Amino acid sequence: MPKPLPLLTAAPVVRRDAARNREALLQAAAELVERCGVADLTTDAVAARAGVGKGTVFRRFGSREGLMASLLDHREQEWQASVISGPPPLGPGAPPMERLLAFGASRLRHHREQAALIEAAGSTWGENYAVLGFVALHVRMLLTQLGVHGDLGYLATALVAPLSVPVLRQQIDVGGLTEEQVIAGWTDLVRRVVGADSPA
Amino acid sequence: MPKPLPLLTAAPVVRRDAARNREALLQAAAELVERCGVADLTTDAVAARAGVGKGTVFRRFGSREGLMASLLDHREQEWQASVISGPPPLGPGAPPMERLLAFGASRLRHHREQAALIEAAGSTWGENYAVLGFVALHVRMLLTQLGVHGDLGYLATALVAPLSVPVLRQQIDVGGLTEEQVIAGWTDLVRRVVGADSPA
Repeated sequence: MPKPLPLLTAAPVVRRDAARNREALLQAAAELVERCGVADLTTDAVAARAGVGKGTVFRRFGSREGLMASLLDHREQEWQASVISGPPPLGPGAPPMERLLAFGASRLRHHREQAALIEAAGSTWGENYAVLGFVALHVRMLLTQLGVHGDLGYLATALVAPLSVPVLRQQIDVGGLTEEQVIAGWTDLVRRVVGADSPA
Repeated sequence: MPKPLPLLTAAPVVRRDAARNREALLQAAAELVERCGVADLTTDAVAARAGVGKGTVFRRFGSREGLMASLLDHREQEWQASVISGPPPLGPGAPPMERLLAFGASRLRHHREQAALIEAAGSTWGENYAVLGFVALHVRMLLTQLGVHGDLGYLATALVAPLSVPVLRQQIDVGGLTEEQVIAGWTDLVRRVVGADSPA
Protein backbone atom coordinates (compact mmCIF):
# COMPACT_ATOMS: atom_id res chain seq x y z
CA MET A 1 0.00 0.00 0.00
CA PRO A 2 1.33 3.49 -0.77
CA LYS A 3 1.90 5.81 2.20
CA PRO A 4 -0.95 8.22 2.95
CA LEU A 5 -0.30 11.64 1.44
CA PRO A 6 -0.10 14.80 3.57
CA LEU A 7 -3.47 16.57 3.77
CA LEU A 8 -4.04 20.23 4.37
CA THR A 9 -4.12 20.71 8.11
CA ALA A 10 -7.51 21.39 9.64
CA ALA A 11 -8.32 24.83 11.08
CA PRO A 12 -6.98 25.37 14.60
CA VAL A 13 -9.34 24.75 17.52
CA VAL A 14 -11.47 27.83 18.22
CA ARG A 15 -14.30 28.56 20.68
CA ARG A 16 -17.70 27.26 19.63
CA ASP A 17 -19.26 30.62 18.67
CA ALA A 18 -16.13 31.63 16.82
CA ALA A 19 -16.27 28.34 14.92
CA ARG A 20 -19.96 28.91 14.14
CA ASN A 21 -19.22 32.40 12.80
CA ARG A 22 -16.36 31.01 10.76
CA GLU A 23 -18.61 28.41 9.12
CA ALA A 24 -21.36 30.99 8.50
CA LEU A 25 -18.87 33.36 6.86
CA LEU A 26 -17.38 30.61 4.64
CA GLN A 27 -20.88 29.53 3.62
CA ALA A 28 -21.90 33.15 2.86
CA ALA A 29 -18.70 33.77 0.89
CA ALA A 30 -19.21 30.57 -1.14
CA GLU A 31 -22.79 31.58 -1.99
CA LEU A 32 -21.76 35.10 -3.01
CA VAL A 33 -18.86 33.84 -5.14
CA GLU A 34 -21.27 31.43 -6.82
CA ARG A 35 -23.77 34.24 -7.50
CA CYS A 36 -21.59 37.27 -8.33
CA GLY A 37 -18.03 36.05 -8.91
CA VAL A 38 -14.90 36.81 -6.92
CA ALA A 39 -14.13 40.31 -8.23
CA ASP A 40 -17.30 41.89 -6.83
CA LEU A 41 -17.14 40.16 -3.45
CA THR A 42 -16.83 42.59 -0.54
CA THR A 43 -16.22 41.64 3.08
CA ASP A 44 -19.20 43.91 3.97
CA ALA A 45 -21.53 41.79 1.85
CA VAL A 46 -20.16 38.53 3.29
CA ALA A 47 -20.58 39.79 6.88
CA ALA A 48 -24.14 41.00 6.18
CA ARG A 49 -25.14 37.69 4.60
CA ALA A 50 -23.65 35.72 7.51
CA GLY A 51 -25.42 38.00 10.02
CA VAL A 52 -22.24 39.07 11.82
CA GLY A 53 -20.35 42.34 12.16
CA LYS A 54 -17.64 43.24 9.65
CA GLY A 55 -15.00 43.05 12.40
CA THR A 56 -15.74 39.33 12.75
CA VAL A 57 -14.50 38.71 9.19
CA PHE A 58 -11.12 40.17 10.10
CA ARG A 59 -10.98 38.41 13.50
CA ARG A 60 -11.66 35.03 11.88
CA PHE A 61 -9.71 35.39 8.60
CA GLY A 62 -7.31 38.32 9.01
CA SER A 63 -8.15 39.86 5.63
CA ARG A 64 -10.18 39.45 2.44
CA GLU A 65 -7.24 37.41 1.07
CA GLY A 66 -7.37 35.19 4.16
CA LEU A 67 -11.11 34.58 3.67
CA MET A 68 -10.49 33.64 0.02
CA ALA A 69 -7.65 31.32 1.07
CA SER A 70 -9.88 29.56 3.61
CA LEU A 71 -12.60 29.08 1.00
CA LEU A 72 -9.95 27.61 -1.31
CA ASP A 73 -8.61 25.32 1.41
CA HIS A 74 -12.09 23.87 1.76
CA ARG A 75 -12.39 23.20 -1.99
CA GLU A 76 -8.84 21.87 -2.18
CA GLN A 77 -9.63 19.39 0.62
CA GLU A 78 -12.70 18.18 -1.29
CA TRP A 79 -10.58 17.77 -4.45
CA GLN A 80 -7.83 15.92 -2.53
CA ALA A 81 -10.48 13.61 -1.05
CA SER A 82 -11.65 12.73 -4.58
CA VAL A 83 -8.05 11.80 -5.49
CA ILE A 84 -7.51 9.72 -2.34
CA SER A 85 -10.85 7.96 -2.01
CA GLY A 86 -13.15 9.07 -4.86
CA PRO A 87 -14.27 6.88 -7.76
CA PRO A 88 -11.75 5.75 -10.41
CA PRO A 89 -10.07 6.74 -12.65
CA LEU A 90 -9.18 9.82 -10.52
CA GLY A 91 -9.49 7.80 -7.31
CA PRO A 92 -7.93 4.39 -6.58
CA GLY A 93 -8.83 1.31 -8.64
CA ALA A 94 -7.81 2.32 -12.19
CA PRO A 95 -4.44 1.44 -13.81
CA PRO A 96 -1.77 4.05 -12.96
CA MET A 97 -1.61 5.61 -16.46
CA GLU A 98 -5.39 6.12 -16.45
CA ARG A 99 -5.18 7.64 -12.97
CA LEU A 100 -2.37 9.96 -14.06
CA LEU A 101 -4.25 11.23 -17.13
CA ALA A 102 -7.44 11.66 -15.05
CA PHE A 103 -5.39 13.61 -12.51
CA GLY A 104 -4.15 16.05 -15.17
CA ALA A 105 -7.60 16.72 -16.63
CA SER A 106 -9.15 17.06 -13.17
CA ARG A 107 -6.40 19.36 -11.89
CA LEU A 108 -6.74 21.58 -14.95
CA ARG A 109 -10.53 21.88 -14.50
CA HIS A 110 -10.15 22.50 -10.76
CA HIS A 111 -7.61 25.27 -11.41
CA ARG A 112 -9.74 26.84 -14.15
CA GLU A 113 -12.80 26.85 -11.87
CA GLN A 114 -10.85 28.25 -8.91
CA ALA A 115 -8.55 30.60 -10.88
CA ALA A 116 -10.23 33.85 -9.80
CA LEU A 117 -10.29 32.67 -6.18
CA ILE A 118 -6.64 31.57 -6.33
CA GLU A 119 -5.62 34.95 -7.71
CA ALA A 120 -7.73 36.77 -5.07
CA ALA A 121 -6.04 34.71 -2.34
CA GLY A 122 -2.68 36.05 -3.51
CA SER A 123 0.72 34.44 -3.73
CA THR A 124 0.49 33.02 -0.20
CA TRP A 125 -2.00 30.43 -1.38
CA GLY A 126 -0.79 30.04 -4.98
CA GLU A 127 2.60 28.90 -3.74
CA ASN A 128 1.18 26.86 -0.85
CA TYR A 129 3.71 24.06 -0.39
CA ALA A 130 1.21 21.77 1.37
CA VAL A 131 -0.91 21.84 -1.80
CA LEU A 132 2.08 21.53 -4.17
CA GLY A 133 3.45 18.73 -1.97
CA PHE A 134 0.25 16.71 -2.18
CA VAL A 135 -0.01 16.85 -5.97
CA ALA A 136 3.71 16.18 -6.49
CA LEU A 137 3.65 13.15 -4.15
CA HIS A 138 0.57 11.76 -5.88
CA VAL A 139 2.18 12.05 -9.33
CA ARG A 140 5.43 10.60 -7.99
CA MET A 141 3.55 7.57 -6.59
CA LEU A 142 1.92 6.97 -9.99
CA LEU A 143 5.27 7.34 -11.82
CA THR A 144 6.71 4.71 -9.44
CA GLN A 145 3.80 2.37 -10.18
CA LEU A 146 4.41 2.95 -13.93
CA GLY A 147 8.03 1.79 -13.55
CA VAL A 148 9.55 5.12 -14.59
CA HIS A 149 13.27 5.44 -13.77
CA GLY A 150 15.18 8.59 -12.93
CA ASP A 151 14.63 11.48 -10.53
CA LEU A 152 10.91 10.92 -9.96
CA GLY A 153 10.67 13.83 -7.51
CA TYR A 154 11.91 16.17 -10.22
CA LEU A 155 9.76 14.64 -12.96
CA ALA A 156 6.66 14.89 -10.74
CA THR A 157 7.14 18.61 -10.11
CA ALA A 158 7.90 19.15 -13.81
CA LEU A 159 4.63 17.43 -14.82
CA VAL A 160 2.64 19.43 -12.26
CA ALA A 161 4.18 22.80 -13.24
CA PRO A 162 2.28 23.28 -16.55
CA LEU A 163 -1.03 22.79 -14.67
CA SER A 164 -0.52 25.93 -12.55
CA VAL A 165 -2.95 28.85 -12.91
CA PRO A 166 -0.47 31.33 -14.50
CA VAL A 167 0.63 28.79 -17.15
CA LEU A 168 -2.99 27.86 -17.93
CA ARG A 169 -3.85 31.56 -18.27
CA GLN A 170 -0.91 31.97 -20.68
CA GLN A 171 -1.92 28.92 -22.75
CA ILE A 172 -5.70 29.44 -22.80
CA ASP A 173 -6.50 33.12 -22.14
CA VAL A 174 -3.47 34.59 -23.96
CA GLY A 175 -2.46 31.81 -26.36
CA GLY A 176 -5.98 30.84 -27.39
CA LEU A 177 -5.71 27.08 -26.75
CA THR A 178 -8.91 25.32 -25.67
CA GLU A 179 -9.05 23.27 -22.44
CA GLU A 180 -9.26 20.16 -24.63
CA GLN A 181 -6.06 21.12 -26.48
CA VAL A 182 -4.27 21.68 -23.18
CA ILE A 183 -5.43 18.30 -21.86
CA ALA A 184 -4.31 16.67 -25.14
CA GLY A 185 -0.94 18.45 -24.86
CA TRP A 186 -0.44 17.35 -21.25
CA THR A 187 -1.44 13.77 -22.15
CA ASP A 188 1.18 13.77 -24.91
CA LEU A 189 3.77 15.17 -22.47
CA VAL A 190 3.00 12.39 -19.96
CA ARG A 191 3.23 9.67 -22.62
CA ARG A 192 6.63 11.01 -23.71
CA VAL A 193 7.92 11.11 -20.11
CA VAL A 194 6.55 7.67 -19.17
CA GLY A 195 7.03 6.05 -22.57
CA ALA A 196 10.79 6.51 -22.46
CA ASP A 197 10.86 3.77 -19.80
CA SER A 198 7.74 1.69 -20.36
CA PRO A 199 5.67 2.14 -23.54
CA ALA A 200 2.14 2.58 -22.17
CA MET B 1 16.01 31.67 -41.22
CA PRO B 2 13.72 31.60 -38.18
CA LYS B 3 11.51 34.64 -37.70
CA PRO B 4 12.90 37.23 -35.26
CA LEU B 5 11.46 36.75 -31.77
CA PRO B 6 9.44 39.49 -30.04
CA LEU B 7 11.67 41.56 -27.76
CA LEU B 8 10.59 43.50 -24.72
CA THR B 9 9.45 46.87 -25.95
CA ALA B 10 11.80 49.77 -25.26
CA ALA B 11 10.82 52.45 -22.75
CA PRO B 12 8.51 55.12 -24.17
CA VAL B 13 10.09 58.36 -25.37
CA VAL B 14 10.58 60.78 -22.48
CA ARG B 15 12.14 64.23 -22.22
CA ARG B 16 15.92 64.24 -21.99
CA ASP B 17 16.20 65.19 -18.29
CA ALA B 18 13.50 62.67 -17.41
CA ALA B 19 15.46 60.02 -19.34
CA ARG B 20 18.66 61.03 -17.55
CA ASN B 21 16.95 60.74 -14.15
CA ARG B 22 15.52 57.38 -15.16
CA GLU B 23 18.97 56.03 -16.08
CA ALA B 24 20.50 57.45 -12.88
CA LEU B 25 17.80 55.82 -10.75
CA LEU B 26 18.17 52.44 -12.50
CA GLN B 27 21.94 52.61 -12.05
CA ALA B 28 21.57 53.55 -8.35
CA ALA B 29 19.01 50.77 -7.77
CA ALA B 30 21.27 48.20 -9.48
CA GLU B 31 24.24 49.23 -7.31
CA LEU B 32 22.18 49.11 -4.09
CA VAL B 33 20.69 45.70 -4.98
CA GLU B 34 24.22 44.44 -5.67
CA ARG B 35 25.46 45.76 -2.31
CA CYS B 36 22.52 45.17 0.09
CA GLY B 37 20.04 42.86 -1.64
CA VAL B 38 16.48 43.57 -2.68
CA ALA B 39 14.73 43.27 0.70
CA ASP B 40 16.53 46.24 2.25
CA LEU B 41 16.21 48.51 -0.78
CA THR B 42 14.21 51.70 -0.09
CA THR B 43 13.12 54.24 -2.67
CA ASP B 44 14.60 56.92 -0.35
CA ALA B 45 18.04 55.35 -0.61
CA VAL B 46 17.77 54.98 -4.40
CA ALA B 47 16.71 58.63 -4.81
CA ALA B 48 19.52 59.84 -2.54
CA ARG B 49 22.14 57.81 -4.41
CA ALA B 50 20.88 59.07 -7.77
CA GLY B 51 20.88 62.66 -6.49
CA VAL B 52 17.19 63.29 -7.20
CA GLY B 53 14.12 63.88 -5.05
CA LYS B 54 12.03 60.96 -3.85
CA GLY B 55 9.06 62.17 -5.94
CA THR B 56 11.13 61.56 -9.09
CA VAL B 57 11.21 57.81 -8.35
CA PHE B 58 7.42 57.71 -8.39
CA ARG B 59 7.12 59.99 -11.45
CA ARG B 60 9.50 57.77 -13.45
CA PHE B 61 8.48 54.30 -12.19
CA GLY B 62 5.09 54.65 -10.48
CA SER B 63 6.07 52.59 -7.44
CA ARG B 64 8.85 50.56 -5.83
CA GLU B 65 7.44 47.54 -7.72
CA GLY B 66 7.65 49.52 -10.97
CA LEU B 67 11.31 50.39 -10.31
CA MET B 68 12.08 46.71 -9.64
CA ALA B 69 10.24 45.72 -12.84
CA SER B 70 12.26 48.22 -14.89
CA LEU B 71 15.50 46.91 -13.43
CA LEU B 72 14.39 43.39 -14.35
CA ASP B 73 13.42 44.45 -17.88
CA HIS B 74 16.96 45.69 -18.36
CA ARG B 75 18.48 42.37 -17.19
CA GLU B 76 15.95 40.35 -19.19
CA GLN B 77 16.91 42.27 -22.35
CA GLU B 78 20.58 41.46 -21.72
CA TRP B 79 19.71 37.78 -21.22
CA GLN B 80 17.54 37.71 -24.37
CA ALA B 81 20.40 39.30 -26.34
CA SER B 82 22.70 36.47 -25.22
CA VAL B 83 20.15 33.94 -26.55
CA ILE B 84 19.68 35.75 -29.87
CA SER B 85 23.23 36.79 -30.67
CA GLY B 86 25.54 35.63 -27.86
CA PRO B 87 28.17 32.89 -28.16
CA PRO B 88 27.08 29.24 -28.58
CA PRO B 89 25.79 26.97 -27.18
CA LEU B 90 23.22 29.44 -25.72
CA GLY B 91 23.46 31.65 -28.79
CA PRO B 92 23.29 30.55 -32.46
CA GLY B 93 25.84 28.14 -33.95
CA ALA B 94 25.46 25.03 -31.78
CA PRO B 95 23.26 22.00 -32.67
CA PRO B 96 19.64 22.52 -31.49
CA MET B 97 19.80 19.96 -28.62
CA GLU B 98 22.92 21.65 -27.22
CA ARG B 99 21.23 25.03 -27.53
CA LEU B 100 18.10 23.73 -25.77
CA LEU B 101 20.04 22.27 -22.84
CA ALA B 102 22.13 25.46 -22.58
CA PHE B 103 18.90 27.46 -22.57
CA GLY B 104 17.50 25.46 -19.60
CA ALA B 105 20.65 25.80 -17.49
CA SER B 106 20.99 29.49 -18.34
CA ARG B 107 17.31 30.24 -17.64
CA LEU B 108 17.55 28.46 -14.27
CA ARG B 109 20.63 30.46 -13.26
CA HIS B 110 19.08 33.72 -14.48
CA HIS B 111 15.90 33.05 -12.47
CA ARG B 112 17.86 32.08 -9.35
CA GLU B 113 19.95 35.24 -9.58
CA GLN B 114 16.91 37.45 -10.19
CA ALA B 115 14.45 35.60 -7.89
CA ALA B 116 14.35 38.26 -5.16
CA LEU B 117 13.93 41.01 -7.77
CA ILE B 118 11.20 39.06 -9.59
CA GLU B 119 9.31 38.57 -6.33
CA ALA B 120 9.75 42.26 -5.40
CA ALA B 121 8.38 43.27 -8.82
CA GLY B 122 5.20 41.35 -8.03
CA SER B 123 2.91 39.27 -10.18
CA THR B 124 2.76 41.93 -12.90
CA TRP B 125 6.29 41.07 -13.95
CA GLY B 126 6.33 37.39 -13.00
CA GLU B 127 3.49 36.71 -15.40
CA ASN B 128 4.80 39.10 -18.07
CA TYR B 129 3.57 37.58 -21.31
CA ALA B 130 6.22 39.35 -23.42
CA VAL B 131 8.88 37.49 -21.41
CA LEU B 132 7.00 34.17 -21.41
CA GLY B 133 6.34 34.59 -25.14
CA PHE B 134 10.02 35.05 -25.95
CA VAL B 135 11.18 31.94 -24.09
CA ALA B 136 8.31 29.78 -25.37
CA LEU B 137 8.95 30.83 -29.00
CA HIS B 138 12.67 30.15 -28.63
CA VAL B 139 12.04 26.64 -27.26
CA ARG B 140 9.43 26.01 -29.95
CA MET B 141 11.91 26.99 -32.67
CA LEU B 142 14.48 24.53 -31.26
CA LEU B 143 11.85 21.73 -31.00
CA THR B 144 11.03 22.35 -34.68
CA GLN B 145 14.71 22.12 -35.61
CA LEU B 146 14.91 18.86 -33.61
CA GLY B 147 12.08 17.36 -35.70
CA VAL B 148 9.69 16.93 -32.76
CA HIS B 149 6.09 16.24 -33.82
CA GLY B 150 2.93 17.23 -31.97
CA ASP B 151 1.63 20.43 -30.43
CA LEU B 152 4.97 22.23 -30.20
CA GLY B 153 3.39 25.37 -28.74
CA TYR B 154 2.07 23.31 -25.85
CA LEU B 155 5.29 21.32 -25.38
CA ALA B 156 7.34 24.56 -25.36
CA THR B 157 5.26 26.11 -22.55
CA ALA B 158 5.35 22.80 -20.65
CA LEU B 159 9.17 22.69 -20.84
CA VAL B 160 9.45 26.33 -19.74
CA ALA B 161 7.00 25.98 -16.82
CA PRO B 162 9.34 24.06 -14.45
CA LEU B 163 11.95 26.82 -14.85
CA SER B 164 9.70 29.45 -13.22
CA VAL B 165 10.76 31.05 -9.94
CA PRO B 166 7.99 29.51 -7.76
CA VAL B 167 8.74 25.98 -9.04
CA LEU B 168 12.50 26.46 -8.55
CA ARG B 169 11.85 27.70 -4.98
CA GLN B 170 9.74 24.60 -4.32
CA GLN B 171 12.37 22.25 -5.75
CA ILE B 172 15.50 23.89 -4.32
CA ASP B 173 14.57 25.97 -1.26
CA VAL B 174 11.79 23.68 0.05
CA GLY B 175 12.62 20.30 -1.53
CA GLY B 176 16.38 20.51 -1.02
CA LEU B 177 17.48 19.74 -4.58
CA THR B 178 20.72 21.38 -5.74
CA GLU B 179 20.82 23.53 -8.90
CA GLU B 180 22.83 20.74 -10.52
CA GLN B 181 20.10 18.18 -9.71
CA VAL B 182 17.44 20.48 -11.17
CA ILE B 183 19.49 20.98 -14.36
CA ALA B 184 20.00 17.20 -14.58
CA GLY B 185 16.26 16.66 -14.06
CA TRP B 186 15.33 19.19 -16.74
CA THR B 187 17.86 17.67 -19.14
CA ASP B 188 16.27 14.24 -18.58
CA LEU B 189 12.80 15.76 -19.15
CA VAL B 190 13.94 17.32 -22.45
CA ARG B 191 15.52 14.07 -23.65
CA ARG B 192 12.28 12.20 -22.90
CA VAL B 193 10.18 14.79 -24.76
CA VAL B 194 12.51 15.03 -27.76
CA GLY B 195 13.61 11.41 -27.77
CA ALA B 196 10.08 10.15 -28.39
CA ASP B 197 10.43 11.51 -31.94
CA SER B 198 14.13 11.60 -32.68
CA PRO B 199 16.59 9.81 -30.35
CA ALA B 200 19.19 12.52 -29.67
